[in-house]
Amino acid sequence: MAVISKKWLEHFLVVTPPKVRFSSPRSKVRFPGSRRKVHCSSASSKLMEFPYASAPIKKLMLELLSTVDDKLGSSLHPTSTLPSHLQHFANSTDTAHASLHLRSGLPSSQIDLILGGWIHCKLPSGGALNITTLSAYLTSSTDAPHFLLELIQNSPTSLVLILDLMPRKDLILHPKYLKNYYEDTHLDTHRQRLQALPEVRPYYSPSLYIRAVISPTAILVTIDTGASQSKSIEQIIEGDISPIAKDLLHFWLESCACSAREVDASERAYLAERDRVIKNKTIEVDLGSSLPRLFGQEIADGVLDALKECYNK
Amino acid sequence: MAVISKKWLEHFLVVTPPKVRFSSPRSKVRFPGSRRKVHCSSASSKLMEFPYASAPIKKLMLELLSTVDDKLGSSLHPTSTLPSHLQHFANSTDTAHASLHLRSGLPSSQIDLILGGWIHCKLPSGGALNITTLSAYLTSSTDAPHFLLELIQNSPTSLVLILDLMPRKDLILHPKYLKNYYEDTHLDTHRQRLQALPEVRPYYSPSLYIRAVISPTAILVTIDTGASQSKSIEQIIEGDISPIAKDLLHFWLESCACSAREVDASERAYLAERDRVIKNKTIEVDLGSSLPRLFGQEIADGVLDALKECYNK
Repeated sequence: MAVISKKWLEHFLVVTPPKVRFSSPRSKVRFPGSRRKVHCSSASSKLMEFPYASAPIKKLMLELLSTVDDKLGSSLHPTSTLPSHLQHFANSTDTAHASLHLRSGLPSSQIDLILGGWIHCKLPSGGALNITTLSAYLTSSTDAPHFLLELIQNSPTSLVLILDLMPRKDLILHPKYLKNYYEDTHLDTHRQRLQALPEVRPYYSPSLYIRAVISPTAILVTIDTGASQSKSIEQIIEGDISPIAKDLLHFWLESCACSAREVDASERAYLAERDRVIKNKTIEVDLGSSLPRLFGQEIADGVLDALKECYNK
Repeated sequence: MAVISKKWLEHFLVVTPPKVRFSSPRSKVRFPGSRRKVHCSSASSKLMEFPYASAPIKKLMLELLSTVDDKLGSSLHPTSTLPSHLQHFANSTDTAHASLHLRSGLPSSQIDLILGGWIHCKLPSGGALNITTLSAYLTSSTDAPHFLLELIQNSPTSLVLILDLMPRKDLILHPKYLKNYYEDTHLDTHRQRLQALPEVRPYYSPSLYIRAVISPTAILVTIDTGASQSKSIEQIIEGDISPIAKDLLHFWLESCACSAREVDASERAYLAERDRVIKNKTIEVDLGSSLPRLFGQEIADGVLDALKECYNK
């Protein structure tokens, strides 16, 4: 989920500290096995409908999820593995909503888990912050890269896009891995194509861990059409981002998720340990940096604990 | 040395293939132990004088080398380890010159080697391409980062800068290393400071290996003052690049080169193997991509072989 800077979030959320915003919850649901409490919505039917996303983002996400379902559906548990109160939750003042949907892979498959989700937060300015995410992790039976997509829209004219196939190995000690997945596949052409647009600038994640975990062909960009005379943000999402995201997902499905590779026992142990760090650290750095500001520390801790539990099963 | 794209080099060198430019060498010197031949200058006294660099780059490089010498001189062999014909060489038409100066660390020190050098190439347009470099590698008795500086000036108003402390470990499996050397030290502020200038844009190395080997706080930028009303390239080198390069070298000398860390035997083996890849791959990707175009394949091969021999001693 969103790796956005504290400063950036504070800029949008401006004033009210979580304690005040959460001081009078309307209803509370306990996290199983903990004393933490969280306000919970019953809108579980809207889990993956992306009700707050802009039309082209919603269209893109539904297409991507449909593709994942067509290709990997039979390899996944049919329902979300997360406790129901995480499938849709909100803060006490109804200014922030979120939905997380996690489907674990069946033991026979190479899929560890697919996590989709969104966060919506009303901004004091009258606008909204919308974060949309899809990540897919493989098991240690393969060393193929994980998939990561994140769209962070903070105004009608600007967007941060993170799109990558995250490497599973140290690329310095494994130059064949770099060649196989990133050089020979010409994945960098996607980034080049997008960064050729005048509205697109590189984005530096405030987290050095995120900069380290991504691949050398990762797309991390800010798109700003505020002063653009030629294209709207919707046109860029539809005409530029969507084809690239679909291409990359298609490549990941064909060449990573559904392509078996020989991995011996020692390599499996290495991959499992590296993945353990990646999954836990990504939650910690990513959701851990934004959820407390949006939902308060108590809800954030509950979400993070439950996610970590699912991740480390 | 310079990791620049083939397209970029071809843009400047335009037409004449190396075979034609090297068809009538004026003098030839054999590489020891090989049948390769290279045209060689006697200007060994000018080794590290950077005769072709612009005044502010020359000033910066001499200051950096003097600092290295003051701090590490007693830990290094007093003279260059490279064969004399590599200390200054040129192509047959005298349009391209280069100088490499390599000082190995004494066995008792943590310094593996310091490599300084420059390449100068006259461009058909009348201008010149000047590459200036300083890299410093540590031995496996420490896991502290290596130092890397490269300045590629291809016109009086533009420059590519690569400045980094290259990590020695996979930062995902070693989060404490990331925290210790890159997060707690706030190294990213240097990059932020430089990229705040309107003349500065991110630079993407055409080599994915180079993008993978650098740290998350690496400075890879293009500086272009062509349309700038406010600053000349010389002012940016003196006022912005030089202080940052000196700061980073100072940090590297104090906290990496001269700071002992406990490294056990298994870790030493890991560092030695990773460094072996880094050193050989960096030569191959970096010099191997530019030298053949500037000096012809024969000279390039000779330089690369001799450097690899010194690197792997």
